[in-house]
Amino acid sequence: MTKKLASELAAIGRRFYARGWVLGTSGNFSAVVSRKPLRLAITASSLPKGTLRASDILEYDEHGTVVGTSKDRPSAETLLHVEIARRRGAGAVLHTHSVWSTMLSDAWAPAPDASVAIEGYEMLKGLSGVTSHEHRELIPIVDNDQNMTRLAHRVGETLDRHPGAHAFLLRRHGLYTWGESLAEAERHVEILEFLFETIGRTQGGPSWR
Amino acid sequence: MTKKLASELAAIGRRFYARGWVLGTSGNFSAVVSRKPLRLAITASSLPKGTLRASDILEYDEHGTVVGTSKDRPSAETLLHVEIARRRGAGAVLHTHSVWSTMLSDAWAPAPDASVAIEGYEMLKGLSGVTSHEHRELIPIVDNDQNMTRLAHRVGETLDRHPGAHAFLLRRHGLYTWGESLAEAERHVEILEFLFETIGRTQGGPSWR
Amino acid sequence: MTKKLASELAAIGRRFYARGWVLGTSGNFSAVVSRKPLRLAITASSLPKGTLRASDILEYDEHGTVVGTSKDRPSAETLLHVEIARRRGAGAVLHTHSVWSTMLSDAWAPAPDASVAIEGYEMLKGLSGVTSHEHRELIPIVDNDQNMTRLAHRVGETLDRHPGAHAFLLRRHGLYTWGESLAEAERHVEILEFLFETIGRTQGGPSWR
Amino acid sequence: MTKKLASELAAIGRRFYARGWVLGTSGNFSAVVSRKPLRLAITASSLPKGTLRASDILEYDEHGTVVGTSKDRPSAETLLHVEIARRRGAGAVLHTHSVWSTMLSDAWAPAPDASVAIEGYEMLKGLSGVTSHEHRELIPIVDNDQNMTRLAHRVGETLDRHPGAHAFLLRRHGLYTWGESLAEAERHVEILEFLFETIGRTQGGPSWR
Repeated sequence: MTKKLASELAAIGRRFYARGWVLGTSGNFSAVVSRKPLRLAITASSLPKGTLRASDILEYDEHGTVVGTSKDRPSAETLLHVEIARRRGAGAVLHTHSVWSTMLSDAWAPAPDASVAIEGYEMLKGLSGVTSHEHRELIPIVDNDQNMTRLAHRVGETLDRHPGAHAFLLRRHGLYTWGESLAEAERHVEILEFLFETIGRTQGGPSWR
Repeated sequence: MTKKLASELAAIGRRFYARGWVLGTSGNFSAVVSRKPLRLAITASSLPKGTLRASDILEYDEHGTVVGTSKDRPSAETLLHVEIARRRGAGAVLHTHSVWSTMLSDAWAPAPDASVAIEGYEMLKGLSGVTSHEHRELIPIVDNDQNMTRLAHRVGETLDRHPGAHAFLLRRHGLYTWGESLAEAERHVEILEFLFETIGRTQGGPSWR
Repeated sequence: MTKKLASELAAIGRRFYARGWVLGTSGNFSAVVSRKPLRLAITASSLPKGTLRASDILEYDEHGTVVGTSKDRPSAETLLHVEIARRRGAGAVLHTHSVWSTMLSDAWAPAPDASVAIEGYEMLKGLSGVTSHEHRELIPIVDNDQNMTRLAHRVGETLDRHPGAHAFLLRRHGLYTWGESLAEAERHVEILEFLFETIGRTQGGPSWR
Repeated sequence: MTKKLASELAAIGRRFYARGWVLGTSGNFSAVVSRKPLRLAITASSLPKGTLRASDILEYDEHGTVVGTSKDRPSAETLLHVEIARRRGAGAVLHTHSVWSTMLSDAWAPAPDASVAIEGYEMLKGLSGVTSHEHRELIPIVDNDQNMTRLAHRVGETLDRHPGAHAFLLRRHGLYTWGESLAEAERHVEILEFLFETIGRTQGGPSWR
């Protein structure tokens, strides 16, 4: 992992913290360092995201072992990052906990295929490969789980069932999105947060007051 | 194009990005460099607006050709800027994608004359030439389109049909406004964003939940 | 007027602009420089408030004449500042245009005694002289008017009719509050903005959707 | 009290002020300096929280006497901080006045056991000792009172009746939360503010419009 990459991950933390998208110690961010073998640079667990330094970024291999001799714990959600990096070939994965993404993740009844549908917005064109506002983006909602192995399995299945999805929501938990690069993944976060707030304010959720 | 002008366009990008009005890579900004022949300084396409540098601003002629040898693409919406600069004699054109302008742009059913009417607010006096809060501002809503030639034509017609309008909305897309100078155009963005939020929170949209 | 005072007025402008309380060129701020004769330092008209410099503050006498030879126009609302400084003995007067104060100013039907009542909030204790959350603050709403002489007269009458009020609202226009010092007036703005948002979100306005 | 501790308390003030959680002169923050005898570093009363300096932090003993010879008054709410430090063994206590915590504190009818229940959110895992989103956090609401001795007594009873609570709300007043360290207490504030806004926006309060 280069120091530049670690600094970029830390800078994303500061920007998202300023917008209130990773309050508490929520959220985690990763970038692929190498493909073969798969290695991810990922934020250590339980750290506030507004004051991340490059030394708070750990390198992690695909077997769940931290590379090197850091005392910090990797994020418990590392397995989800690995799952996404593998199945989507993503170069970067970002997980945020905003108010609006949490609200939207809880707006529809639990079901195997619960999802948020977003259609007709120009802002959708900022998602990788989307060329028209007429695009229909279906963002699956995955039930939350503290068993990370089980959750990673469920996420893997969901990604396969929705090959065109640019993101998924964990119920009452937050957003996962990704991209070829950190810049693309950050752009996806901004676009989806914008759309969640717009959808939430105009359409609301069926279960909301 | 002077370096000062490019720096001012970049600074507007940072301010609007901080307020969440140009998330993702949305929005674009232009200023007239010369009238005869018409030349516009305009933000290059697909760039995040919070980190614009002066070198991200391109000069563009009225035939759609970038002046000089930049590798960056001009914004696809350059034709709309040209249309506004011509028909309104504007010195600067600013396009933003805020949550509230997107919401308002979608609050009324599609129709040739769909519009948002704003009346009775002191803030209206900040619009160029308006001298009383009793002014009635009619902001036309133009249906969105990926065909830029067709959209530019539709925008031109709308501008002619609403000679007093200080702005228009693209449906589910965002706001275009302009001014004699960049400072005036930026003031118009702030005023309209304020009014959209106020109108949206008190009156809502007919189609909103 | 000391340079320190002008710098303090400019700094208030930057803070309020950052919170979105003086967008466009809205809002104006004053501080009493001397009592006999009455002289006010006040922000020049039609300036953006986020980039005020000390040189943008004018000194104004009680007859409506700018002291010195500035080319800038004093704020058209100077008469209201004079009225408040006289009748309340205020040392500073601040006028803001936030979304929530504009919304609240328009929530009740026009009437000679239209007002917003706020009661039972601990935050009220930050208003000068208030010692318990059980205080009932009645904030009169004054109809807006472009005739400043007539509006100043109406404001004067309202201040006399509500001797305990710490502020008033101009309908669809914004908030005026004041204090012994600039620090006290700024505290009053923050407290009232907090209360307007809280009241607006929980009770709404009778005429709101 | 070390200068480092005072600087950390001041820095928390700036961060909370930026988010609008301690407007006016609201809010106060403390950290335990020694256990035996109990001594607290606490913010002086009636100061704006965005410009706190280390010299604005007072040291206070358990009998209500300021240590040293400061002219500043300790916060009137010092007794509540002492109560919490004693009964919870907290190392730091933070009190904020956000719009959403004020709204939630007023959403349920007064009753000896009024409370806000929050359950099922991943963000709950950031509260000390909570290991699953299935945790049910019950945040008691204590009626506000200007008699600090009586209020401290009521708070003490409430803390004993709710041994698992990480926080309480004072009605129409704000939030008190705490932690082993200042960092933990600040994390708790961020988490609870996030949850209050999420709950408030999706479920609302029974008495809200």
